[in-house]
Amino acid sequence: MIPPSRDPSLRALAWVGDASTGALRLLDQTQLPGVVAFIDCRNVPTVFEAIRSLRVRGAPAIGLAAAFGVVVAAQDARTVAEVATRVSESTAYLAESRPTAVNLFWALGRMKQLLPALEGCRDADAARAILLGAAQSLFDDDLAMCRAIGDAGANLIAELLPNARAALTHCNAGWLVASGEGTALAPIYRLQERDKTLRVFADETRPLLQGARLTAWELSNRGIPVTLICDNMAAQVMRSGRVDFVIVGADRIAANGDTANKIGTYGLAALARMHGLPFFVAAPSSTFDLALESGEAIPIEERAGSEITQIAGRHLAPEGIETYNPAFDVTPATLITAIITERGAIRPVDRDGVRRLLG
Amino acid sequence: MIPPSRDPSLRALAWVGDASTGALRLLDQTQLPGVVAFIDCRNVPTVFEAIRSLRVRGAPAIGLAAAFGVVVAAQDARTVAEVATRVSESTAYLAESRPTAVNLFWALGRMKQLLPALEGCRDADAARAILLGAAQSLFDDDLAMCRAIGDAGANLIAELLPNARAALTHCNAGWLVASGEGTALAPIYRLQERDKTLRVFADETRPLLQGARLTAWELSNRGIPVTLICDNMAAQVMRSGRVDFVIVGADRIAANGDTANKIGTYGLAALARMHGLPFFVAAPSSTFDLALESGEAIPIEERAGSEITQIAGRHLAPEGIETYNPAFDVTPATLITAIITERGAIRPVDRDGVRRLLG
Repeated sequence: MIPPSRDPSLRALAWVGDASTGALRLLDQTQLPGVVAFIDCRNVPTVFEAIRSLRVRGAPAIGLAAAFGVVVAAQDARTVAEVATRVSESTAYLAESRPTAVNLFWALGRMKQLLPALEGCRDADAARAILLGAAQSLFDDDLAMCRAIGDAGANLIAELLPNARAALTHCNAGWLVASGEGTALAPIYRLQERDKTLRVFADETRPLLQGARLTAWELSNRGIPVTLICDNMAAQVMRSGRVDFVIVGADRIAANGDTANKIGTYGLAALARMHGLPFFVAAPSSTFDLALESGEAIPIEERAGSEITQIAGRHLAPEGIETYNPAFDVTPATLITAIITERGAIRPVDRDGVRRLLG
Repeated sequence: MIPPSRDPSLRALAWVGDASTGALRLLDQTQLPGVVAFIDCRNVPTVFEAIRSLRVRGAPAIGLAAAFGVVVAAQDARTVAEVATRVSESTAYLAESRPTAVNLFWALGRMKQLLPALEGCRDADAARAILLGAAQSLFDDDLAMCRAIGDAGANLIAELLPNARAALTHCNAGWLVASGEGTALAPIYRLQERDKTLRVFADETRPLLQGARLTAWELSNRGIPVTLICDNMAAQVMRSGRVDFVIVGADRIAANGDTANKIGTYGLAALARMHGLPFFVAAPSSTFDLALESGEAIPIEERAGSEITQIAGRHLAPEGIETYNPAFDVTPATLITAIITERGAIRPVDRDGVRRLLG
């Protein structure tokens, strides 16, 4: 058995070169795990297509790709005025690439706020340098955020579970979704830097198999031992003592700590509780939506049944069969041991704890 | 959306014609759900291959196919002595078709016990008629067993859950695995006969997808409304009030009621308990192995990782990734509301209850 090649220099995305002639380099996640291929985006439709087709995915990475996409858009401008036009056009255009990614709109908004600053530039190159500087700054902020989540998580795990040997995770929330080490997997990578390498059991995460395709690959690539399981094996993995805790990311967290995440997360949290295992959520503080009193206010998106009935284009279930395909579920705060953010950990998880941390 | 065609006359297997010129007709389950095709077995290698290749599957159905296979083996015999030789040869040969199916060895043993009775026959046709009569009697016993499980289960559900509208099941334990209505799904079919049609949520059952391929199809074929879900959606289905109970089959049951069944069953039982839902196991009394004191004595078979890393021949996970692929798990008796057998239901499920029923 040959493990996937290890190359810790791989990143989900990066800017290569200078503002006027460089490119946004993306690791094409649609080709993983079979092929490690990069796309150098040198025009904005390429960036748009990469976001829409999930070549780059995960809320932080999508926002950063869009920000660099604005730099790419300005590369053929000959004057400062043309740069400004490209910024306006491309921010509007790229906002249409994915419907619900809050980070996308936020990052594009940040780029658009640069318009007044561009006016004083002596030429187009200077204006482009400002755009790249801003996009790179968003990238660096994301790096720092991932690192802070990683540190907070690593500290908490070291404190609560000094003898931990293995973790269980669901879906993909590691370095493939961000500039840095991601969210749920960041504490695993930080512990590794501290010479504490945990094994990770990765749920394959039906229906879209992000665990099998992405998490297993990205952990192996960083030298973390990983064991791939089907989602329905998690209870047996817990009962047989193979894991010491569960750690997952989050899509949206309500004011009381109730957490929406990939379908299957709630069942894992319930099983972790039954087996006396800590259940951690790791996410940036921007994931909190304080307008939502509790998880009951979080709408559950239902997706096409074909995600369940077909795999890799092949029909596996009877044609026309009814399905129920919720994309997310909501884990009540009472089942969550701690929510780990870049500002520190919330523990216990309740309305007061959330308020204290978000201040 | 076109539901699968409904044809309640379909059976997993049946004998067609007389003993000397008839055939064992199998529904080829490897072609489901896409194609409904039958195989008429007229020689014993065809029967062997059908069992080995899972064209016929499920412990009861395998045993019955092997018994009819002995009848097929005797069809080219010209004398009573040749019939006896064919019986001896084919029982030894067919025993090699699957390694662990207890019903297979049991059914072949029953056929072999006919050898003394054959000696008094006037000709080969008469000897073959005895063989077919015995195989048909095993078939009829199985029909009655399924019906009795169905009645016991339907009565229990009607008593405990008079307002039930939907059930959740895992893997496949319906009419495709037996002569009759199967085990876990038999109570559903019996309730339908009593004008109480429940909806069934079917777990797709990774890694081999028996729920998606077989359960969804066989229920639809009988006019039972079915909703296919991924295994990791069961907790959300329970929490949202979509199902009233869980019902599954069993591979082996220990003397204290601990039950081995398809991987994922234990997690479902734990989640059902957390959600206050009854969890039923339906299985013939022959599934009990009283030599096993508890579930801890049941070995958990681990199967090839390729079942997880590949679907329909396509690689979905990184090459060489480690996996953990237990084929079964053990559900402790304390999580089981009742074990439903052809002799009635065990409730509560404990050592005394098992002893009383099997007594």
